[in-house]
Amino acid sequence: MDLEEKALESTRIYDGAILNVRKDIALLPDGRTAPREVVEHPGGVGIALEDEEGKFFMVTQWRYGQRKVMTEFPAGKKEKGEEPLVTAKREIIEETGYEGLDFVHLGKLVPTPAYDEEVIDLYYARKGRKLGQHLDDDEYLNVTRMSLNEIIDGIMNGTIDDAKTVAMAFMIREYKERTNEEH
Amino acid sequence: MDLEEKALESTRIYDGAILNVRKDIALLPDGRTAPREVVEHPGGVGIALEDEEGKFFMVTQWRYGQRKVMTEFPAGKKEKGEEPLVTAKREIIEETGYEGLDFVHLGKLVPTPAYDEEVIDLYYARKGRKLGQHLDDDEYLNVTRMSLNEIIDGIMNGTIDDAKTVAMAFMIREYKERTNEEH
Repeated sequence: MDLEEKALESTRIYDGAILNVRKDIALLPDGRTAPREVVEHPGGVGIALEDEEGKFFMVTQWRYGQRKVMTEFPAGKKEKGEEPLVTAKREIIEETGYEGLDFVHLGKLVPTPAYDEEVIDLYYARKGRKLGQHLDDDEYLNVTRMSLNEIIDGIMNGTIDDAKTVAMAFMIREYKERTNEEH
Repeated sequence: MDLEEKALESTRIYDGAILNVRKDIALLPDGRTAPREVVEHPGGVGIALEDEEGKFFMVTQWRYGQRKVMTEFPAGKKEKGEEPLVTAKREIIEETGYEGLDFVHLGKLVPTPAYDEEVIDLYYARKGRKLGQHLDDDEYLNVTRMSLNEIIDGIMNGTIDDAKTVAMAFMIREYKERTNEEH
């Protein structure tokens, strides 16, 4: 069965600072039409930065939409059209103060497939030189370090619930097992 | 450091069919203010339904915001205020035609912490009676079955990239290892 839905019409709903919303009329596979709301977002990156002791840099910050503090791998939004590796190399320095080396692209992650264009490129890197943290003007976060086992324990006991962090932790363990080498 | 950001003002931007958007002015920890855009969403569930051969029901559907077909664990949106287990029991029948038994709550997942309220409750269940698929009027999907190893291979080779599906597959493998029992 061909599942594609084609846009027939598109209406701008909102053009904001970090997201836009549009509402399309889509042509369904059976010839009927249906409304489709879409959150437009340029996409982002997540970066798992591992130090020489096998610990990963984690950022803890207030997540406004969730009304709570969350602990996550460092992440950031792409500038429009930016290559994700460029974003990753910039964001890891800004959030942790350390450069990343030997970046491995773990894959892409679609956080919200039902109504959002966002795609997150997932990277795994090794800690390089200390260059100094440089946060955005309205960004407040605490940086800690956790082993992969501590992160996976946090996922299983519910204290870590950010989707990219869950995906990256397990994908890194799987990657390490499959390549069977120290990164 | 206290990281909490408190809402000072809130402006309705859009009230839609599957999502709303508001724009708040937030009080930052240092006393300054900043705009915060929030996608409002009632939350949803993901359900991994395992048959007697250890294979999981997967749904393949067109994802409009991503402009591609994606293969995912069955999922659905909560009615406002609905208990997630109620949603899960309904959605698994609607999408696969089978009831779920012995539901295990794997945890909660936050797909998009930066700007979205959505939380997904993740469930693992055993296949029960065949009751018949019942899709929404504008919902088209194909149902297949995959082993956990096939799903994890798909994640690592990039053909499966839905965040809840990635999280659930690895969490189920971890859950099976930790409980060391057939579910």
